[in-house]
Parts: sequence; structure tokens; C-alpha cells
Amino acid sequence: MLEKYISAAAGREKAELVLKNAAYLDVFCGVIRKGDIAVVGGKIVGIGSYEGEKELDVSHLTVLPGYIDGHVHIESSQLSPEEFASLIVPRGTTTIIADPHEITNVCGKAGCEYIAKASENVPLDVKIQLPSCVPATPFETSGAVLNGKDTEAILKEGYIYGLGEFMNYPGVINCDADVIKKLEAAHARGKIIDGHAPAVYGETLNAYLCGGISTDHECVYKEEIDEKISKGMYVHIRHGSSTQNLGNAKCMTSANMRRFILCTDDRHAADLKEKGHLDDALRRLVADGVDPIAAVTCATLNCAECYGLKYKGAIAPFWAADLVVVDNLKNFNAKYVFKDGKLVAKDGKPLFDTSKRYLPENVLNTVHVKTLKPEDFTLTLKGKKAKAMTIEPGGVVTGCEIVEVQSVNGDVDVKGTDILKMAVVERHKMTGNIGKGLFKGYGFKGGAMGITIAHDSHNIILLGDDNAALATAANKLKEIGGGMVLVNSATGEVDSVTLDIGGLMSSRDAEGLQRDSKALIEKAYSMGVKRELEAFMSLAFLSLAVIPKLKLLDTGLFDVEKFSFTDINAE
Amino acid sequence: MLEKYISAAAGREKAELVLKNAAYLDVFCGVIRKGDIAVVGGKIVGIGSYEGEKELDVSHLTVLPGYIDGHVHIESSQLSPEEFASLIVPRGTTTIIADPHEITNVCGKAGCEYIAKASENVPLDVKIQLPSCVPATPFETSGAVLNGKDTEAILKEGYIYGLGEFMNYPGVINCDADVIKKLEAAHARGKIIDGHAPAVYGETLNAYLCGGISTDHECVYKEEIDEKISKGMYVHIRHGSSTQNLGNAKCMTSANMRRFILCTDDRHAADLKEKGHLDDALRRLVADGVDPIAAVTCATLNCAECYGLKYKGAIAPFWAADLVVVDNLKNFNAKYVFKDGKLVAKDGKPLFDTSKRYLPENVLNTVHVKTLKPEDFTLTLKGKKAKAMTIEPGGVVTGCEIVEVQSVNGDVDVKGTDILKMAVVERHKMTGNIGKGLFKGYGFKGGAMGITIAHDSHNIILLGDDNAALATAANKLKEIGGGMVLVNSATGEVDSVTLDIGGLMSSRDAEGLQRDSKALIEKAYSMGVKRELEAFMSLAFLSLAVIPKLKLLDTGLFDVEKFSFTDINAE
Repeated sequence: MLEKYISAAAGREKAELVLKNAAYLDVFCGVIRKGDIAVVGGKIVGIGSYEGEKELDVSHLTVLPGYIDGHVHIESSQLSPEEFASLIVPRGTTTIIADPHEITNVCGKAGCEYIAKASENVPLDVKIQLPSCVPATPFETSGAVLNGKDTEAILKEGYIYGLGEFMNYPGVINCDADVIKKLEAAHARGKIIDGHAPAVYGETLNAYLCGGISTDHECVYKEEIDEKISKGMYVHIRHGSSTQNLGNAKCMTSANMRRFILCTDDRHAADLKEKGHLDDALRRLVADGVDPIAAVTCATLNCAECYGLKYKGAIAPFWAADLVVVDNLKNFNAKYVFKDGKLVAKDGKPLFDTSKRYLPENVLNTVHVKTLKPEDFTLTLKGKKAKAMTIEPGGVVTGCEIVEVQSVNGDVDVKGTDILKMAVVERHKMTGNIGKGLFKGYGFKGGAMGITIAHDSHNIILLGDDNAALATAANKLKEIGGGMVLVNSATGEVDSVTLDIGGLMSSRDAEGLQRDSKALIEKAYSMGVKRELEAFMSLAFLSLAVIPKLKLLDTGLFDVEKFSFTDINAE
Repeated sequence: MLEKYISAAAGREKAELVLKNAAYLDVFCGVIRKGDIAVVGGKIVGIGSYEGEKELDVSHLTVLPGYIDGHVHIESSQLSPEEFASLIVPRGTTTIIADPHEITNVCGKAGCEYIAKASENVPLDVKIQLPSCVPATPFETSGAVLNGKDTEAILKEGYIYGLGEFMNYPGVINCDADVIKKLEAAHARGKIIDGHAPAVYGETLNAYLCGGISTDHECVYKEEIDEKISKGMYVHIRHGSSTQNLGNAKCMTSANMRRFILCTDDRHAADLKEKGHLDDALRRLVADGVDPIAAVTCATLNCAECYGLKYKGAIAPFWAADLVVVDNLKNFNAKYVFKDGKLVAKDGKPLFDTSKRYLPENVLNTVHVKTLKPEDFTLTLKGKKAKAMTIEPGGVVTGCEIVEVQSVNGDVDVKGTDILKMAVVERHKMTGNIGKGLFKGYGFKGGAMGITIAHDSHNIILLGDDNAALATAANKLKEIGGGMVLVNSATGEVDSVTLDIGGLMSSRDAEGLQRDSKALIEKAYSMGVKRELEAFMSLAFLSLAVIPKLKLLDTGLFDVEKFSFTDINAE
């Protein structure tokens, strides 16, 4: 193959494809240059004056390296990898570092394999990071457990690129034996390990880094970013749906710029479809005053360097012909996207078929619960005062507020208040576990709502003011094999959207799913859910016991700061 | 081991060593920070406030990452790897990318093995690049031939890090089958390939890069540097003895800075001892106005990134405790040098033993010639006009000048002119080959001088104005097993310095070798060698058929630009 590249580069043979009259971004020097870009066999072979078998005039457009998403959970799109690709590739993303943390928590290793195999038939380079925290904490019931030994075994499989975000930072810092085994297994195979250590500083951060952890996408404070970069981490600039830290880009200097990379982490299909993927991050960054060339470099070369992706992230001879042709560096509208030298999207539309889905049995039918009754949701308190969960702006960090509630016949009655009953129903192993709690400030009234996406163990999470509606919601989720549900006590209506893949993702096309989801979400808002919240997806973070402060697990109410269970009674 | 790092980082256990009150360079952010640097088991484990079993107060000093030489031929020091380390480690260099091109051209694979094994007992990380051009051209006689198949086989051996400088750029550009085999063998094993493509531009450069070649240390022109960096190459800033391009640093911008790395390529023992190694490059760069932090970053992080040296080139938790403690960022005097956390040099002196040398038989006794007679140096021309080699400032590029010479009895007589006879005597395979030519402007008179270092095939190269002296010089080199020789026709004196390892390097200590070499060099200058030339080392480049313009090989006079032999007769 080298001969073909070299012969075309030297002009002795015609290139397969030439982008004529390109203005292109040279990420190495941070300038826009001009030339014809010649492509052979999936690689750029030359920039200069070239002729090709096919030629595409790109005058007045700007050619950029294909974007690389440094950290993404495909599951958060609620789409299959094929359909996910159909949304992000036309936006200019050609490579992702995918951490199938969610589906692996539901389906174990089969979840990883599914994401890897389903990605094979789409023109998107998907590097799989083996989830490091399955389950995320030992306190809850997940669908699978991957211990150190499992991790070591799976890391040997060819399709695993690295080790996913190490959220169990206390485990690292305190040298938990199984954590150490996972880290050492990754180092033994030279794998990069992603980090997750919000607001960890000083000697504690040093200890975390001594696990050999390379990145952090949870940074938000300037001093945190500075310290993490100074200690060798790459810091993500994140453009998720719920979690955003585009402001991190304000901490970039010409000296530290190479240590910033872009990612989306968790991004919904609706945002992907309506706003975009990394193209939207770039648009927003540039609108915020970030130098467009620096921004694109974070999304390309920097990310490739961080993850050791050789010959990716730049436009140069011998580098991958993963290219996005945009209108300009303000709007970043992708006119053409090339993956390995092939035109795979045009004017925002994919040119590849995603109708064939890889759908193995072992990621389907994952909601295993007994049929629930209204009395399963009875919540008996010792007195009137109880701890209620609240939600902070941003939708991931929760608070704890002492509230006063009424009880009737030994069961909390929240009707007509701004407080809801909350329940987490274990759905993997039929344990019958139901964690119960209270939530203040969601706004929802007159029924129940629920979802089988509940980070990170993905049990059923429910909110409601009516035991019967809560039971109906849970039973509906069982019936449809996972998804989102909304029960209106007054009308008796039960609406739902099915997420058949692990209870997390839909095997349908993005458009249908999005239309139905949107309708359901609007219905939830019409039942009072506050507009500043994501109607269903904000629910999904209320079980996430690695993010402060108060969370609800299938096993009970959990104080993240004390890292232990806590009593709901506050008197 | 991770537990030990983490426990010390967290402050639960004392570190093995702490550099207290350090001002240290954070290469990620380009700033000097302060803190105690804690070290355990060869790694930095933390920066902050630490206690150690051993503590060293470094107040008023500055701690830098150990320097990395991005491209060096140890052989050019004329020292064994052990002795070479004893000179450069105390200067602050802790890692080198070594290309044993010279000794491999003499001894084949055994030369590579020798450098690798001899380096094992010194506190210097030596990454071996397998020479890609053995011989450098097919036109000359070298001691060994490594073809594509050989290259493929040797690359599989664990000690080989990458593929050395690909000087045969016409071979790459023209898809020479054996060249392609070498390149593909390197790519198949994910090896980095060093480049060497002076003044190659445009589509020709594209073709060269399509070989998958990553670096260039031959750059000198701004437009050349810009183009090479824009096309994905790392560009070396070189501080050799004969070859210098420190001026390349003037082309650094904040955007392209990460693509510059430092190297020495070829540097004599005398320079290493008297002026220094990369410390001297840094001193010179800073004196020339280069930002000291940028300069050190080129010598550390950038080089580590270029060569994929994980956790090297920065001061951060989990990174190698390869550290140099300097007085300041102007003088770069190394007060302490740590390799893998161990103090290995202090105040410019090595603290390790280099007296035990690894000296395998297969790199000794490498001068294989028959005894030569004066008449072997007879040079018969067709007329008076002939091509004479000249030397350009810098000492590597040669020119061609048409000169008029006298002949007596069918033999050129150069006595009393500024022209010398030149001879290249094949010394590996007893072929009896003697290439003959003329040289103008060396200044030497009254005898002969010679050396067994003659890039890249390392035959015997001789200059002189007296056939008897030329024969004596060659015979003396045979007798001593390689080295440098100076014959004074008037006094009959024959002085020499022995280079017993491959005829290139001495197994002696640096001090003794340097003293004797200096005396010999001074004697050569006293016999007229121009002071702007390196008395003997300038000779060593007159056979180098990959650098313009006129060169002399054992097989005859060679026009590099035409890449073919040329007739000495100019009428």
C-alpha cells in the first residue's frame, strides 16, 4: 500500500480523490493554508497541486480534520451505535472514545461487545474503553460485576482500547485491592486510563494520579483545571446535554492549550439532531470568544495525542483522510464529511445505511422485576421531618433538604405539595429491592413517571405522588422491556417510550424515537416538571452515588459525601 | 507497586526521596511552580508538602525534567556508551534516542546489540533506532548490509525502539522495493521512523512522508521548517559539533512549539566535556533570546511526545523521576541529576561507575586491509584539469571546483599547492578498493592524515601530499585497529589515536582519549589544517554520499546531485 500512497503523492499516479482548492486547517502551526488535498486508500497522501480520479471543488469552504470525541457514552443518546453514527458523522465527528459504561452495568461484557460490533458497520471509528466501575459503587445492585480479574481478562481482547473513567476515586486513593488489580492490568497492556475526579486536589489528586490515570472530564474550576493540567492530565471541555463545561476553554493559554480536548460525555438524540455534536461545541466556543483554530485543535490533534491515535487529527501526508468540510469557522456547518477518504455525509445527511442493526439477544429483555403493587410504595417515617433530595442547577449534583411531610395510615402523603415520593426498583436480579425516598422541587404532580436509565446501575427510578401510579409506571416499564413512562392518575393515561437495548437505548431510528420522546417529555412538562430540568434525564442522575450529595439506590438512601447509607428520618 | 506510589502520594507513607522547597518547571502550563517533589520507586509520586526517608533541600535551585536527546549517534563521541553516559548524564540528559548507524555500518546487527547491551549498566535510558540505511548508498562498500528482510527480522527483537533516520529519500520517493519492505516492517510493528530529508519540499516531501516518516533533523530554512511541521513532522533543533541548527528555534511560535525537539546528532567528546550536551544547547538558545521554558519543553515533553515515551519529560505524579536540578534557566548548570529517582550525578560529576566496559569480540578488530604501498596512491589524470572537492562552511556539504594540477610520471603532484590527494581505502572486506580524488582548501601540508571514521561506510579516508605518507597512514590505521593518524613526511613522525570499537570509538576513558585526541588535532592544525575545520572530523564527512555535492567513495568519485559516479577528469 505504501507504494500507492507514495506514487500518488509524487504525482506519478492520479489520486483516488482530490479536494481541489482547499483552504484547510494546519493544526500543527495553527494557520489556514491552501492547496489541493489528495487522498488514496483512506489516507491523505499530499497537499499541493494534484489531480484525482474524482475531484471535488471546495473553494470557499474550509477543510478540517474529522472531529474526535474524547469521551462519550453512546447510550446517553438512547440510540443504537448505528443510529448514533448517523447523527454525529454528518456533523463532522469521525472518531469517538466510547465508554459503554451504562450498558456494561446492565449486560456486563456483552454490553461492550455489542457496542464494538454494532459500530463496525458504520463509518465512525469507535475506540472502546472498558468500563472500570461496574458497578459504580458496591452499595447498589447492578446487572453485572466486573472485578479486577474480569477486567484483566477482558483487556486482553483485541477490541478494547483502554480503561474507562475511573470514577471510584476513593478506591484508587485508598488502594482498594480490586481497584489496584484493574489499574495494573491496564498498565500491563499499555492502555490509557480515563479519569473522573471532580474537585479532587492536592495530595489526594497526586494519589489518584499515581494510579496512572490520564484524563479528567469533570473539571469546572479554574484552579482545578490548572492543577490537573500541571500534574499531567488532559482536561476535557465537555458539551453534554445535562453536563456542560465549555467554560473550561477560558482557562486555555497558548502554553497549556495542547492539554485540552473536547468531548460530549452524555448527549441526547434530540440535542444531537437539533443542535449537533462537537460541531455545536465548536460553534458555542467560538461564539464565546474562543479562538476557532484552538477550539478545532482541541477537537482533533489534541484528542488524538491524548489517546495515542496515530496519524489522526490533522491534515497531512500519511494521516487518515478523516475530513470535514465546513462553511466557515463560525458556523461549522458540515457540507461534506469524509471517513477514510470516502464521502460519508453531505449537507448534514448521512450517505450510509444504518437500517441494518446488530441486535444480539443478550442486550434485549433486561427488565427483571416482579409485578408491583401500590403498597410496595408505602413510605413510613418515624416523624414528620425527613431528608428530601433536591437538585442543583446543572442537573447532576443533588442536595439534601430537611422537609416536613404529612403521613396518612403510616404512609407519607405528598399530594398537593412540592414534594414527591421517589423509588428505585432493582431490575436486574429480581431481588425485590426498592429504595424509597423523597424529592423536593421537581414540579411534577398528579401521577408518576419513571425510567430504566438510572446511572450507573440502571435500576428503575420513579417519582410520583400516588402509589398506584408508581406501581403502574414500574409495571409498564417491565412490560415494554425498559424505557420511559408517564402515568396520569387523573386520566388514567399511561404513555411510554420503549428503550429495548438494555433498557437504555432504542433499536428504532432516531427520528421516530425523538418524535415519541419529545411528545412524552412535553407531556411530563405539562404535568408540572420544571422547565429548567430535563424532564426524564434529570431523573437518571438521582441514583448516581459518585456525585454529591444525597442519592437514592435500590438499597436505600445514600450520602455521597460520607460514602454510606443514611436514614431518611430527620428527627 | 501502585500501592506504594499511591500511599506515599497520599502522605500515608514517607516517600523514599523528597526534593524539598523545589521551584520546578511545569512544562504543561509553561510556568515555574513551587512544592516538595516526592519520589518512590523511580517515579515522582507527588508535588506538594512531603516528607521523605531522604530529603534534599533544593531552595534557590530549579528542577527540570531530565533532558531527552531526540537523535544521537553515540559513535560520534568516539566513546563507549558507558563513557558517553558519564559525560552527558551529569549534564542533565537522562534519555537518548540513539541511532547506532555508524557501528552498524561496520559491524551489522552486532553493532546495534553492542550499543544496547553496553547501555544497560549506566543510568541513561537508551532507545535504539535500528539504522535504516546500511549501507547508506548501494554505491560504496560497507561492513554490513541490512536489507528489508534483515530489517524485518531485527525489528522483532525486543531491544529495538524504532527505525533510524531514513536517509535514502530517493529510495522512498521512488518506491525502491527494499526500502518499502523496511518501512512496512516498521509500520507493522508500530515503530516510529526517523527522517532525514534536507531541503526536500512540496510533492517530493509528500511522497517521502507517505513512507510514514515522522521527524527531520536536517532542516535549516524557515520555509522548510514551516512546511515540514505543517505536514506533520517533528523538527529537531540540533546542537552537534559539526552540524548545528539552533537557529531553527527562531521559527517557533506558540502554536507550533510542540513540534520542535532538541538533539545533538553528532557531538564530539571534547565538546561534551568542555561545553556540554543538551545543557549547552539550552544555554545557547537562551543566550540567543529563545524563551527558556519553551527551550526546555523542546528538550523534554516535546521529545517524549514525538517518540511516544510515556510518562517521561515532565514533573508530575506517576511520571519518571528523571530530574535535573539546575542553578538557573540561563546557565543550566546541573547541580544534581536523578535517574529513576536515584542521584546519579552531582556538580557535573557522575556518581556511577563506568570502568567496566562491555566489549564483545565482534565489534573489535574491524580494519581489514592489505598492507599498502606508496604506489597504491598514484593518481593518473588525462590532462591538467580535474574536479577537486571543496568544503562549505559547516563542514558537511562539499562543493566541486575545477582545478589545474601538475603531474609527474603519470602521478598528480600536489606538493606546495592548496590541493591534496584524497583516498578512500575499503577496510571491511579486503576488496582492495581505493577511491582516489583531489581536495582543495583543507590547508594541510607535508604528509598525510587519515581516519577510519568516514560516514557512512567508515572506510579509511586519507588526505595527503605524499604517497609514502598516505601508505604509512593507512598501514598505521590497520596496525592499531582503527582510529586517527597523522604522518609528518619531514620528520617521519607517525602519531595516532586508537579507536578500537569498530574503528569508531575508544574503549578508554573520555579524559585520556580526549587528551590524546586534542594533542593529535593540534598537531594537525600545526601542519596547516584550517582552523575553521574540525581537523579530523571534517574528513569524516567527505565520503557521505547522501549530502551534496561531490563525495569520494571507495568505489570512486561521486556526484550526489546526479546520484552517480563522476569522472575526476575535467577536460
